[in-house]
Amino acid sequence: MHTPLYSGYFILFSTQHLFMLKLLRKYSEENNTILCFGIDPRFEDIIPIHPIARVQSPEERIMNYYFEITDKLLEENQIAAIKPNYAYFAQYGFLGMSALKNIIQRYKNKTLIILDAKRGDIGKSSEAYATELYDFWGADGSTVSPYMGADSVKPFLRKNKLTYMLCRTSNKGAKDFEELSCNGKKLYEYVAEKSLEWGCGLVVGATSDSIKKIVSITKNKVPLLIPGVGSQGGDLKMVLESIKDNLSIHRINSSSGISYAYKKSKKYSDQPVEAALEECNKLNKKIREYL
Amino acid sequence: MHTPLYSGYFILFSTQHLFMLKLLRKYSEENNTILCFGIDPRFEDIIPIHPIARVQSPEERIMNYYFEITDKLLEENQIAAIKPNYAYFAQYGFLGMSALKNIIQRYKNKTLIILDAKRGDIGKSSEAYATELYDFWGADGSTVSPYMGADSVKPFLRKNKLTYMLCRTSNKGAKDFEELSCNGKKLYEYVAEKSLEWGCGLVVGATSDSIKKIVSITKNKVPLLIPGVGSQGGDLKMVLESIKDNLSIHRINSSSGISYAYKKSKKYSDQPVEAALEECNKLNKKIREYL
Repeated sequence: MHTPLYSGYFILFSTQHLFMLKLLRKYSEENNTILCFGIDPRFEDIIPIHPIARVQSPEERIMNYYFEITDKLLEENQIAAIKPNYAYFAQYGFLGMSALKNIIQRYKNKTLIILDAKRGDIGKSSEAYATELYDFWGADGSTVSPYMGADSVKPFLRKNKLTYMLCRTSNKGAKDFEELSCNGKKLYEYVAEKSLEWGCGLVVGATSDSIKKIVSITKNKVPLLIPGVGSQGGDLKMVLESIKDNLSIHRINSSSGISYAYKKSKKYSDQPVEAALEECNKLNKKIREYL
Repeated sequence: MHTPLYSGYFILFSTQHLFMLKLLRKYSEENNTILCFGIDPRFEDIIPIHPIARVQSPEERIMNYYFEITDKLLEENQIAAIKPNYAYFAQYGFLGMSALKNIIQRYKNKTLIILDAKRGDIGKSSEAYATELYDFWGADGSTVSPYMGADSVKPFLRKNKLTYMLCRTSNKGAKDFEELSCNGKKLYEYVAEKSLEWGCGLVVGATSDSIKKIVSITKNKVPLLIPGVGSQGGDLKMVLESIKDNLSIHRINSSSGISYAYKKSKKYSDQPVEAALEECNKLNKKIREYL
């Protein structure tokens, strides 16, 4: 069993955290990007890449679709992390989970694997979740909800692992609680402050101009995971301007915008791999202006 | 596919919600209790019930341990719900998940099954999580984190299903964010207010005297799921006093306090089933003074 680092947060921040920053920078420099590929399988959008795919099992359909796209994106140095979202696999039960396991195994040590599972419970239950995410699934990183506080988040802050705490998310509901004003400060600002103390990263939606405030609170030293630049319509230029002086520790995520790029591509409307590559090229062109 | 009830919250609260209140009351009246049995498997605490258990697979060890205890508790009318906690199963990977699936299948329609998975993501991802919890696992109810707001919670509010939103939890970290004062009101009070608007239940720890305030905000009409009376040392009498005038819609949960009662029992130190029954009898003696 691994020992979670429960105490000495400052030490954690300056050793374990520095290790993760180094790893984030390594993959970023190797691929000259901070793009993260979000993996959200939906049967209805997964079209056959090769004719043989028509006779595959549902599990093979998911795996092969993402294997083909991810292999290509890694080969072409288009991405510096992948982010499978647990919900989209688990909705298909054991066959979806088996596909998730195979995807993580295939890319282990080839890129950074952030398992987006938004876990969080009381301390001893969060320990069980950390065992699930890191030891069973084999992820390098995870996402966690801050709501239940310190003992809920800390079991995820394990040596050589990266935890992103939800901060200001990209959805409409973010205004319900995250934007509440508490003693003159917004709830998400408290969460951002805690990330410095606890030594974790933050999830910040690209659709929100709160990103500038969060970068200022964290002195641009806390790694951000930034979803929402694709189908959710976030502003990539604004994001890049906000984080540009320490770009390589951050990750900008696009999920269905890459996976299902074929749906919007004129040239590659029946070629998901080529369409995904085209979309990444487009995003990376902007990202590389800042790297 | 089931259609999540996205709109008409007042209607939802007065029809779907009334259905669930009826179901909560039914199981409560049939068993003359509001006790919920929390299922948190930990290998190190699962001791053989019969000598044959020594040669079982790890998966069978979990299942048989909980089958024997739960069968007995249902037979003796000691419980009105079970609450498997996802974390404790998932920490053992596919074999733990398979045990979870078998436990849910065995008790489906025999008692209320609340799958404690503390999910929550942006709207379309929460829809996938709701499909996981209700359609794949087959749960009657779920727990969800409020942090990301309305579109994160609403996909779980499905017809004939019960969703409990985290409100004021029983752990130490609850003070970090849940207790933050926002415009003179605490964050958890905002969450409690939203439960009335959205039509969901609330998770409220028994260790907190905030339970009285929450019952007052919700006019004791919103079902509470109350963990923390067992090993966490919550005050059962205070809890019962707070909810007594509408007792049957609520559930008081004990997990390891029941499962691993043998560890504290003088009489049944090597008999987990009898020790669990003894513990439930003790809790129900107090609960039944109010029913």
